[in-house]
Amino acid sequence: MLHIDTDSISKMQSRYQANFFNTVSGFKSANLIGTANQNGHTNLAIFNSVIHLGAKPPLLGFILRPTTVDRHTYENIKKTGYYTFNHVHESFIEKAHQTSAKYDRKTSEFEACGFEEEYFDRFHAPYVKESHIKLGLKFKEEHLITANDTILIIGKVLHAYLDEKLIAEDGSVDISSAGTVTISGLYEYLRTTKLKKFEYAKP
Amino acid sequence: MLHIDTDSISKMQSRYQANFFNTVSGFKSANLIGTANQNGHTNLAIFNSVIHLGAKPPLLGFILRPTTVDRHTYENIKKTGYYTFNHVHESFIEKAHQTSAKYDRKTSEFEACGFEEEYFDRFHAPYVKESHIKLGLKFKEEHLITANDTILIIGKVLHAYLDEKLIAEDGSVDISSAGTVTISGLYEYLRTTKLKKFEYAKP
Repeated sequence: MLHIDTDSISKMQSRYQANFFNTVSGFKSANLIGTANQNGHTNLAIFNSVIHLGAKPPLLGFILRPTTVDRHTYENIKKTGYYTFNHVHESFIEKAHQTSAKYDRKTSEFEACGFEEEYFDRFHAPYVKESHIKLGLKFKEEHLITANDTILIIGKVLHAYLDEKLIAEDGSVDISSAGTVTISGLYEYLRTTKLKKFEYAKP
Repeated sequence: MLHIDTDSISKMQSRYQANFFNTVSGFKSANLIGTANQNGHTNLAIFNSVIHLGAKPPLLGFILRPTTVDRHTYENIKKTGYYTFNHVHESFIEKAHQTSAKYDRKTSEFEACGFEEEYFDRFHAPYVKESHIKLGLKFKEEHLITANDTILIIGKVLHAYLDEKLIAEDGSVDISSAGTVTISGLYEYLRTTKLKKFEYAKP
């Protein structure tokens, strides 16, 4: 077994290091985050860092680096307070990945990458019509991670839109059957196959 | 399409709500976190919340709820400063899930669930012998999420141990071929199949 220590890490070429540590943490979620500025100009970007923080109240988080293309998403969320999470399905991974390109502020990734905006219940932020599982969130709090200046953005889920058939009796959503993909690292998209659903574990 | 709003959320039965919001954020990573207290008494617990925060420096985070079984993990990390992440592979999902049971402090989940402790390079925390991808981390910072009293724990990767053949030329680790699983919600474990690896996207 290979041992990589701090000395070998410090000698890694920068893109190699990015790929190594982006994959070695394990599989990631795949969500398109939809926002709009105060004038309704929309933005859409793929994020592989959406995480569950709690169910009651329903809180989800995601990580962003203020120095990258994500900045449009951040600015829209801070100015309007609202944003959407839209699952990425197998049928449109190519278009979804394309939203990670650095488009200028005037360009909406909805149009540039071929997604259709959808609005429900007078919510300010746009949903992605192509997605079968969509959430509408309200910004709650943010945490600056001082070790590398990334930001954890936390929001409360106000709305969920999905096919009722995807919800099992116990409340869990069958995201595998919905065709939702998972991401490894920055570039690889994967399909999932169910192995086993366990019960609540007891000693 | 079903619309779930704040009113329907407030009427959800508690376990239903937990399952719904634990699945709807997307797929999760599967890691066993290994720790030891100051006397070397070990603890092992599965976490589905490990996330990548940055590659340079290599920072990974995970979420824990201080009010649950995770507390042993938290106390050991805060007291000793060190912990390990060990990928969960398809071959031992049953044992890995069993570590989520509420064992008392005197019981080591290594022994109770059938895992073997492994120590490398005088690192205080135990690795899991059965895992093919293992990381040794040092605690860096924590953030209390005030909205629900969960904690984001951030650590720096000091060591990585893995089969050299799993590392591609670009530095990315082939965690799918390693048999690393992904988790949906709290109970479901899934295998992955590669769909496509894209390039860095340009407008």
